Amino acid sequence: MAGNAPPPQIVILGAGFAGLTAAKALKRAPVEITLIDRQNYHLFQPLLYQVATATLSPADIAVPVRSTLRDQENARVLLGSVESIDRDARMVHLADGREVPFDYLVVATGATHAYFGHDEWEPYAPGLKKIDDATEIRRRVLLAFEKAETEDDPEKRRALLTFVIVGGGPTGVEMAGAIIELARKTLVSDFHHIDPSSARVILAEAGPRILPAFAEELSAFATDSLRRKGVEVLCGNAVTDVGPKGVTLGGEDIGARTVVWAAGVKASPAARWLGVEGDRAGRVEVTESLTLPGEPRIFVVGDTAAAQWRDGVTVPGIAPAAKQMGAYAARAILADLKSRIIAPFHYRHQGNLATVGRQSAIVDFGRVRMKGFFAWLVWGAAHIYFLIGFRNRLIVMLHWIWAYVTLRQGVRLITGSTELPK
Amino acid sequence: MAGNAPPPQIVILGAGFAGLTAAKALKRAPVEITLIDRQNYHLFQPLLYQVATATLSPADIAVPVRSTLRDQENARVLLGSVESIDRDARMVHLADGREVPFDYLVVATGATHAYFGHDEWEPYAPGLKKIDDATEIRRRVLLAFEKAETEDDPEKRRALLTFVIVGGGPTGVEMAGAIIELARKTLVSDFHHIDPSSARVILAEAGPRILPAFAEELSAFATDSLRRKGVEVLCGNAVTDVGPKGVTLGGEDIGARTVVWAAGVKASPAARWLGVEGDRAGRVEVTESLTLPGEPRIFVVGDTAAAQWRDGVTVPGIAPAAKQMGAYAARAILADLKSRIIAPFHYRHQGNLATVGRQSAIVDFGRVRMKGFFAWLVWGAAHIYFLIGFRNRLIVMLHWIWAYVTLRQGVRLITGSTELPK
Repeated sequence: MAGNAPPPQIVILGAGFAGLTAAKALKRAPVEITLIDRQNYHLFQPLLYQVATATLSPADIAVPVRSTLRDQENARVLLGSVESIDRDARMVHLADGREVPFDYLVVATGATHAYFGHDEWEPYAPGLKKIDDATEIRRRVLLAFEKAETEDDPEKRRALLTFVIVGGGPTGVEMAGAIIELARKTLVSDFHHIDPSSARVILAEAGPRILPAFAEELSAFATDSLRRKGVEVLCGNAVTDVGPKGVTLGGEDIGARTVVWAAGVKASPAARWLGVEGDRAGRVEVTESLTLPGEPRIFVVGDTAAAQWRDGVTVPGIAPAAKQMGAYAARAILADLKSRIIAPFHYRHQGNLATVGRQSAIVDFGRVRMKGFFAWLVWGAAHIYFLIGFRNRLIVMLHWIWAYVTLRQGVRLITGSTELPK
Repeated sequence: MAGNAPPPQIVILGAGFAGLTAAKALKRAPVEITLIDRQNYHLFQPLLYQVATATLSPADIAVPVRSTLRDQENARVLLGSVESIDRDARMVHLADGREVPFDYLVVATGATHAYFGHDEWEPYAPGLKKIDDATEIRRRVLLAFEKAETEDDPEKRRALLTFVIVGGGPTGVEMAGAIIELARKTLVSDFHHIDPSSARVILAEAGPRILPAFAEELSAFATDSLRRKGVEVLCGNAVTDVGPKGVTLGGEDIGARTVVWAAGVKASPAARWLGVEGDRAGRVEVTESLTLPGEPRIFVVGDTAAAQWRDGVTVPGIAPAAKQMGAYAARAILADLKSRIIAPFHYRHQGNLATVGRQSAIVDFGRVRMKGFFAWLVWGAAHIYFLIGFRNRLIVMLHWIWAYVTLRQGVRLITGSTELPK
């Protein structure tokens, strides 16, 4: 009996929804887990736009990974960046030279924003994936109003008060709704020289309609709601240039000092680390068991994976899908340790949700569709419920109730530099 | 009747306790107030150490200045840095070229940390005055434990787990108490390779005892309390060098990757702007009416002023003193507008308070002195009471109760770079 053999080494890359779910699902397994992330926190990304628009604080939607796993004896947490993966030697190489051997590997490093080959746009149009992204966007949005207050040149003032959100998915819609409400409700009586409610908020979507993942009637409802709030929803034209002065949209130059990128994502460089070809979005194509073809002990899950759902459609890059994939990888590892095989991964789509401002949302559960205030309550309940850690749930609820009742957004702090990029 | 004469222009520099109190006290006055600050928020500095040690979020102790003054019709808020003051032309020049004329000027730009002629120490020993300082110190403290977890060299690991706080005033004492509790209570079971409770926390005070503003018995109580918690309280030796590897204290080199500067403050450059000689701490010496000698309409208040208290002792640099000075300046301006004169400024010292860790504090009201748990309740009540804005009070109380009950500090987020300075 090999009773003294070291327990199998499970290395999980990424402490997002997929990676953390996998780690937790292996809690009672006779294995040693190493969870590696570049950040020391797990982030509840669906509410990140509320940090970017000054309703929530970073700590409301982020928990230290160590804290989450402190009671899990078989898991250790490493702060580090992956440099490469040696599939033959079963070794992960980190950027600082450390090496982490594995028997099973779960790659769950998520996705980042993609500028469609125009990485030079990034300084002018930050995306929204990390906490530092959110505080940077918050800084720029708040600073734009501050600078407008003392700008005498009408054209420059106009550009300071113009906010362009590129991309009409849920993040873009939620950002546009939140910025228009910040301008028209929260800030409206804070300034003397400018009228914050005159701010232009433009939501630019290249496709024919916003929120294409939702049923057409819900998408139309969201468009109407945003327009009634004052957002200019412009579909059918791609942004062809982004620079310090604004964007070019459908051949027209729009002066805008604040641009937020919510248009495209690309997977983390997992395909490169694994030495395979990624798909168009950089994702790793996986088997029906979420493993790398030919590598039954290397799983790729969450936004990093291109997993088949139905009819050539891949599993969407949303939190519930990532959690399901992480849980599946854990179950598959447990089964393999007992020399068993489990059924292929089957994605159960629970639905799509998006808010359209402070009191309205759309919910698409397939057969059941909701919109407006009641859908917003469903959205709020679902997000509060899934927030990890009781403290955060309570505090976030209080923040929301406070913001809702008073129309004030309390987290209007400009941290870091008080200059806009030139 | 000069009914159409423009109202007197009151310019207030700085939105700290002194400046904001002055602005609010002029709420009903027939004047136009311009409040200028480099940041867009008013900061409740006495609790800043709790942001640096991961108990509170920045937004818990900061409120947007505009939000605070939104209902005050006669006040406008400008985000800007003072470049110079032209006393003859009655004009404030801002760094971006803007000019702000004044009839009355209230200079309340506070103080910053002073390195006693060793500004080269600053990168290695950040001070604690702004929100960005606090998140930077939080980042370094948390990152030191993370780096120690994967450091194989015992000497380097020792230096990563050694925290030196320079200066035994209230800020230094509070930081030392909070860091030792972070290490011994909050983080103790979060790590696998290192034992966070083995961290050394050194409080270095050059004078003969810590907390010299307090009665000797309270200072002795604080020293004992800190030592029982595990802090090394070292008095009587000045730090003579600070560098990337640590500090030199009493001729001895102490390896420490985290150093916090709580040793000295110097006033903001108000003396230079006003063209006068500052005192040793850079403060502007003021008349008994808190005005610049020879300038009855230029007030200097708060930490920027060297105001006489009694027997050649100046008014201390604490929040209640700043508020009293700000209120006095407003009263003096109101009186002057009616061609009246008010009695000289008289500082009423209410007492000194400092926490010594999670459940203990010292309170020195002169005749009434308290220490331990009951003093801690007094401290907590006083700080909650003086927090501006109900939302913050409630949220801060919840954070405290949560942290107290669970011993967890929820705001353990490493934001910004995940590298320590080389």
